[in-house]
Amino acid sequence: MTVPAHLTFLDAFFHPKSVAIFGASTNPNKSGYKIVENLLNHQYPGKIFPINPRGGSILGMSLYKSVLDVAEPVDLAIIFVPNLHVVKIIEQCIQKGVRGAIIEAAGFGEVGLEGKQLREKLRKVTENFTKIHIIGPNCTGITALDEDGVGFFSSFIPMANTKAGSLAIVSQSGFINGAYYPDFTGRNPQMGLRYVVAIGNKLDVNENHLLEYFLYDDNVSTIGIYIESFYDVRQFILLTRQAHQLQKDVILLRSGFSPLGAKATGSHTGALAENSALIEAVIRQSGCILADDFWELFLISRTLTFMKDTGTNNLVLPNIGIITISGAAGAIMTDWSAKMGLSVPDLDENSYSRLKELYPPWMNPNPFALVDYWPAVEHMKSYEKVILSSTDILLSCPDIQVVFLTVYYSASSWIVDWAKLKDTVEKHKKPIFVWLFGDYQEILQGESIFQSIELPVFYSEKSLVQTFSKIFTSYSFRDRLKDFK
Amino acid sequence: MTVPAHLTFLDAFFHPKSVAIFGASTNPNKSGYKIVENLLNHQYPGKIFPINPRGGSILGMSLYKSVLDVAEPVDLAIIFVPNLHVVKIIEQCIQKGVRGAIIEAAGFGEVGLEGKQLREKLRKVTENFTKIHIIGPNCTGITALDEDGVGFFSSFIPMANTKAGSLAIVSQSGFINGAYYPDFTGRNPQMGLRYVVAIGNKLDVNENHLLEYFLYDDNVSTIGIYIESFYDVRQFILLTRQAHQLQKDVILLRSGFSPLGAKATGSHTGALAENSALIEAVIRQSGCILADDFWELFLISRTLTFMKDTGTNNLVLPNIGIITISGAAGAIMTDWSAKMGLSVPDLDENSYSRLKELYPPWMNPNPFALVDYWPAVEHMKSYEKVILSSTDILLSCPDIQVVFLTVYYSASSWIVDWAKLKDTVEKHKKPIFVWLFGDYQEILQGESIFQSIELPVFYSEKSLVQTFSKIFTSYSFRDRLKDFK
Repeated sequence: MTVPAHLTFLDAFFHPKSVAIFGASTNPNKSGYKIVENLLNHQYPGKIFPINPRGGSILGMSLYKSVLDVAEPVDLAIIFVPNLHVVKIIEQCIQKGVRGAIIEAAGFGEVGLEGKQLREKLRKVTENFTKIHIIGPNCTGITALDEDGVGFFSSFIPMANTKAGSLAIVSQSGFINGAYYPDFTGRNPQMGLRYVVAIGNKLDVNENHLLEYFLYDDNVSTIGIYIESFYDVRQFILLTRQAHQLQKDVILLRSGFSPLGAKATGSHTGALAENSALIEAVIRQSGCILADDFWELFLISRTLTFMKDTGTNNLVLPNIGIITISGAAGAIMTDWSAKMGLSVPDLDENSYSRLKELYPPWMNPNPFALVDYWPAVEHMKSYEKVILSSTDILLSCPDIQVVFLTVYYSASSWIVDWAKLKDTVEKHKKPIFVWLFGDYQEILQGESIFQSIELPVFYSEKSLVQTFSKIFTSYSFRDRLKDFK
Repeated sequence: MTVPAHLTFLDAFFHPKSVAIFGASTNPNKSGYKIVENLLNHQYPGKIFPINPRGGSILGMSLYKSVLDVAEPVDLAIIFVPNLHVVKIIEQCIQKGVRGAIIEAAGFGEVGLEGKQLREKLRKVTENFTKIHIIGPNCTGITALDEDGVGFFSSFIPMANTKAGSLAIVSQSGFINGAYYPDFTGRNPQMGLRYVVAIGNKLDVNENHLLEYFLYDDNVSTIGIYIESFYDVRQFILLTRQAHQLQKDVILLRSGFSPLGAKATGSHTGALAENSALIEAVIRQSGCILADDFWELFLISRTLTFMKDTGTNNLVLPNIGIITISGAAGAIMTDWSAKMGLSVPDLDENSYSRLKELYPPWMNPNPFALVDYWPAVEHMKSYEKVILSSTDILLSCPDIQVVFLTVYYSASSWIVDWAKLKDTVEKHKKPIFVWLFGDYQEILQGESIFQSIELPVFYSEKSLVQTFSKIFTSYSFRDRLKDFK
């Protein structure tokens, strides 16, 4: 990874050699204490300088009264103090030679005149961010994972399930690092993360800086972005096109697309209302995958990282196969597939005759790629055999790109060694998307088994189809992009 | 409940005094055994006559070789035998005076010529269903709950979490009773059921019979329907309009709406392709709530039964209030609300001044009904107080119909007595829809707490907004319907 010169300043944010925490508190219940605790718990490898004019000690370290009292160099500042103190602290950081600051305090652009004045003061003392770079304000900053559970964490929330991986998130909401993190990593424990960056009001560092930086990090394969307003839409398009050329996926969640939503984002990060028609054109031109909400942002991100890990992300045809115990579930998946531009092809002769062997003589399978497996299970007297054979048959068809698999999951009666399904996936280098149902408590166990073999599980049939369709659409865009080079 | 004469035959299906099981098996692993076991486990109050020409005994009962050997009257037959034996069994049932039969066997309309011939034979021997009524074939029949866990069950799948309540389901898929049941009742244990009827190929009994029957059952408040083709569209519209007059909700899930999906339903229940434009017009004229998939069918059903139980189903305005820890989550909910025809009104002076008291002097709340509660929690030093006060303030506004509440759920740090939230709901008779996040394992506990106080929880922000919007749209239709009486 060689980062271009104009972005090397971000290294100090992601891999600071030393960090000062302004607002570090001696009280274990305060967030200013928890930031320090979080760094230690995640084995942050650099030096930590907690700073508080009141003095005292925290977790065995003495509090410095000022950053100017620190004898050694300081790379980065985490600033967790009321907004009115921030300008002075930034001045001291500049004096000390600190390269970057994460301002976690709120009360800038989003709260009227006083906030706007503070913002202007910051521009002035930093000489328009030439003397120091700033992430925030009004953010929870950075999570950067070097290995499982180890790295740099600027948030005050303890992070669980911090598996290192290839997903990078940029978010104009502190909520991602501050509260939603344990939710999405708890639900998707095998979804490894590389970076999560909350950029808040993005006074200085914006989504384009980070998007470009991630393009140069070979460890990043998937980039999720939550944004309330674009910094520079033209540049954003150019960067997402570069992402396509590098086979990296960009998933975009945007709020403020309605006049009412714009009012909401205005009060949140001070985002200005944007022209919705313009933005939709941008999204079309960027070929980003557009997420409907936070749930979907992580559902798609998780799915893409699984597809990349299993090498099943070479999508060229909009053709799906469906394997289901429920004709009704199959019909609903078929409908949504058709509505979303996908197709269920007819089976070739060889595949059809292989499939026929699984069925009782009085009932033939469908001539098209919708396998209703209940009669086959009764005939073969083996659930496992039917699941494994039918996925193998469908994924063997050159026409078929993916299998949507409806699983009746029952650990207590219908036993399947699901790891064998992973072998099928690896053999064909094509993905399987799973819709799981059965006893709810058993399903929770089932989900963790499918997580461990990196087959994506979905709760709703429509959401399963929509996820595949959105990914396929983005990949088609990428293909078309090649022709224009 | 007085059922009109042309529907009294259904009493024999839902409350049979005695039932014969054809295909009852002595082997505990066979479905023909499990049907009998299921009836006993759920304390079916009538008499059970297991029938199998091979004889033997099952769960302490001797198997009859034929229904004609049973000395006492038989109300209902459950037929679980290969399709070729069905006609003869029906003839014997008619001879015996059985009033209804549930045919669980497959292989009729959906599998070509031989199946069609069988179907015609059944029409003939029953003299067009005047001598006996039939549910199915190709179905799992009936679940009818009289009290929690007690009632009549014709399926071979053991049913867990069978809470009795006001939801009735009609499904052209055996999957509902056969496999999806433990899933949706496990996820929504407080969603009480009255009936679940799988009608399969609906040779005789169809969705309109059942819909009309449910209109006469005072215990039924919410009716969910999964269908692959309509029996009689005009009658369906008339019945749903009656449902509106009775303040009963109808949720419709339909498959086969695309040509590809129609191919799938054709192979499933032999449904004929229907004109999609016509069907969409039907749905508009019926004012049904249209579900996207099975997941949503039960999500909406669960939500409606909760709203009815808590008396919060009097929706007159499309105006919502949002209470959130995350400005971003609030903005996304606001966007989807606007896109789906809902509104976030401005706060009146009194509400605003009450809300202001919760906030620190340096940060005022929004002037419109979007409460970003983090600064208030820090100021009040109480999460509970902010949650309870802000919901009370918003629900007090005459303009506001519902609160969308984003909850950071943490049993280990931010403790709230959530039952107090139910008091707020009951005081104002307005619903709260909850989006929950936090540590995933804690959330699972949180969900069950919210279930117990009947506040509906959602996984995705869009899905929360969509559920409310769909319910509101149907209620507005109902209101407009009044003007045409």
